[in-house]
Amino acid sequence: MNILISNCSILPMTDQTPRCFEGSIGIEGERIVLVSDDPQAVEAFRERHREGLREIDGRGFLAMPGLINAHNHASMTLMRSYADDIPLMSWLNDHIWPFEAKMDREDVRLGAELGVAEMLLGGTTTFVDMYWMQEAVGEVVEQTGIRAVLSATFTEARYADFERDFAAISDRYAGGRHPRISLMVAPHSPYSTSTEHLSRARELSERYGIGINIHISETLDEQRTIQERYGKTPIEYLYDLGLLTPQTLAVHSVHVNDADLEIMRRCGVSVVHNPQSNMKISSGIAPVAKMLDAGINVAIGTDGPCSNNDLDMWDEMRSASFLQKVSTGNPCVLPAYEVLKMATVYGARAIGMADQIGSLREGMLADVILLDLNKPHLSPQYDVVANLIYCAKSSDVDTVIVHGDILVEGGQLLRMDCREICRVAQARVAEIQKR
Amino acid sequence: MNILISNCSILPMTDQTPRCFEGSIGIEGERIVLVSDDPQAVEAFRERHREGLREIDGRGFLAMPGLINAHNHASMTLMRSYADDIPLMSWLNDHIWPFEAKMDREDVRLGAELGVAEMLLGGTTTFVDMYWMQEAVGEVVEQTGIRAVLSATFTEARYADFERDFAAISDRYAGGRHPRISLMVAPHSPYSTSTEHLSRARELSERYGIGINIHISETLDEQRTIQERYGKTPIEYLYDLGLLTPQTLAVHSVHVNDADLEIMRRCGVSVVHNPQSNMKISSGIAPVAKMLDAGINVAIGTDGPCSNNDLDMWDEMRSASFLQKVSTGNPCVLPAYEVLKMATVYGARAIGMADQIGSLREGMLADVILLDLNKPHLSPQYDVVANLIYCAKSSDVDTVIVHGDILVEGGQLLRMDCREICRVAQARVAEIQKR
Repeated sequence: MNILISNCSILPMTDQTPRCFEGSIGIEGERIVLVSDDPQAVEAFRERHREGLREIDGRGFLAMPGLINAHNHASMTLMRSYADDIPLMSWLNDHIWPFEAKMDREDVRLGAELGVAEMLLGGTTTFVDMYWMQEAVGEVVEQTGIRAVLSATFTEARYADFERDFAAISDRYAGGRHPRISLMVAPHSPYSTSTEHLSRARELSERYGIGINIHISETLDEQRTIQERYGKTPIEYLYDLGLLTPQTLAVHSVHVNDADLEIMRRCGVSVVHNPQSNMKISSGIAPVAKMLDAGINVAIGTDGPCSNNDLDMWDEMRSASFLQKVSTGNPCVLPAYEVLKMATVYGARAIGMADQIGSLREGMLADVILLDLNKPHLSPQYDVVANLIYCAKSSDVDTVIVHGDILVEGGQLLRMDCREICRVAQARVAEIQKR
Repeated sequence: MNILISNCSILPMTDQTPRCFEGSIGIEGERIVLVSDDPQAVEAFRERHREGLREIDGRGFLAMPGLINAHNHASMTLMRSYADDIPLMSWLNDHIWPFEAKMDREDVRLGAELGVAEMLLGGTTTFVDMYWMQEAVGEVVEQTGIRAVLSATFTEARYADFERDFAAISDRYAGGRHPRISLMVAPHSPYSTSTEHLSRARELSERYGIGINIHISETLDEQRTIQERYGKTPIEYLYDLGLLTPQTLAVHSVHVNDADLEIMRRCGVSVVHNPQSNMKISSGIAPVAKMLDAGINVAIGTDGPCSNNDLDMWDEMRSASFLQKVSTGNPCVLPAYEVLKMATVYGARAIGMADQIGSLREGMLADVILLDLNKPHLSPQYDVVANLIYCAKSSDVDTVIVHGDILVEGGQLLRMDCREICRVAQARVAEIQKR
């Protein structure tokens, strides 16, 4: 389908400093072919695509790139608000892990579906997932139209399952075989996997040309454990194993020292910052302002819905900025536009897609969202970017286009039955608990 | 009007631990006269009020007390996202104060109107305002149907205006003369007012039997200034002047030591915590978990829309919990139900209305909100309170009733033209900047 979004405000995220202008966006199939404020260029596009052109009246809307949620365990929506406000080890041992042990493929599929519904409604067009049975998540991604990076994960105890899981998706999604799905390999963390299997993950990443997605330096406990086991920081340990490359996502990176940061910068890894998860489970505060200053690429993720408890990137961006401002004592750090880049441009860079998504430019894939700005909490409009970061909500997202397909319109999912998904999830979790 | 909300989930906030049940709520005029799961009692209410009874089908909705925003400068919505991410003194000297100096009565009125629209849509039914020209804010409160505590404020430079401002509202609102509006007197802060005028504020509070609302111990700079001027902490200074009473709102209280906390506890003051403002302008982290442990009443406020930048109490509750968890390193502090109490029960206690609002009990004023729970980000529903604190948004609020009047229904304002208010605000700020 071809789409023309006419007469909207456009925040293309293509510039060093914020630039917003009135214009139109033309989409041909899955690609953006026009981003312009020139009426003649718009008219030429309209003329060229007269047959079956879908025109969206953009007046009053802001068009911007879809958000990239760079760290998620979408299927854990089934454990949303299942266990909160309790000590970390009891939370894992007594609640999360026993529940997960009961989950089957259909639960993983259903949880991902619920998560994708929530993400699309909030303007997230790409997510990086990390979980078991990614083949089931792949099915949801294929059906719903969202874009995803699937990361098959393992802890040492579940390593054999991982080999099966990975085999089930590598043929289907590796090497650019699917237009909206790519792959990563995801050892859970340095403390929960063996050196041997971390090396195996590196081999797989090299063989398939895919990234490595790993939780690292999340807690002080982890830092102590790795120091005791290997006499190194977690970052040093992974570096020595050759796991830190420009294709690596170093998720969390809360407890990192200056030497770690220098290694990360030199290796070109991307950090994924999950501020609300780090706050809620008391992991600590990642030195994000320092990372950005050092030239390290930092993306933003929500983490799973057990430790957040939602998949709302607007909330997450706001928390990222506020948390750095209060922890550094400097209200100037992580200004609004920089934070918005983290959730768009830097997210795209983290997953190796900076030339495809994360900004609105002719030739790029059409992942576009429209926000309705005519709301009290977004008025007046001095600075649209500050309004987005400090005031906007998921519910301000009106329209979501992924890969040239309209998936949300008027704040409603077009391909998914939202009420039914919620109803089925509620029934399912009651049943899981009885297993 | 009489209203019956039938067959909803009810979270009355009347208990020490969370209790939620299916039932109905009957409202007679401005009061709740029925909160019950007994079908016969509901039928009797329906029978008794057959004439002109407004019945709301509550299936799928959660009914709870309206939220209390205990600190706000609503009229500053006109400066929302006007100046962000800059150093504090430049922010005040070069942006906020010059803008404020141009504001006239109509600007204050319009800003309050925009703020009230935002608050009502998000389920805030009571707000404590602190600003100049509170008479104009009172006009908005009277017309829109929201409940408010107006606090006429002064800095030393504007003291003469304050005396006029206060005289303009004391006759109208002091002593319970208005059913939805009460008064406080609000010296801006210990550092911006003289000892003489702080004492004058105490006299007014005694004469009219009203509370004192004051920013205190917000920044380290303030603490240093007061220590240099008076050889005391800000809390000690106010205590010595007799300003700390059970009717005092100690807004912020970020930098307080153990001796300060003991004074506050003994005097029975209420703290108003504004976590997002404290984070955004890098003021610091108030020791809220410690305050609550010490038995100090702590309410939640958004602060003004210049330092937040919205008036969203859901976001604010979430930030309050997350910020304490990360700063104490303890994921158990400020659990969901405690935070929800801060925004309801404790807020009501802070403004001396604990027997009138903040919980749903027969005989109390009818400030009730209904949330639509059938949304992906609120599914599944294991723990409704955790979902409210960690996932809910303003946009989940469907219906808002204040003082027995339905002000919001289906997420729409019934008495205010939302688009028109936004349009007028936009035009107005363009005009203010040209003055």
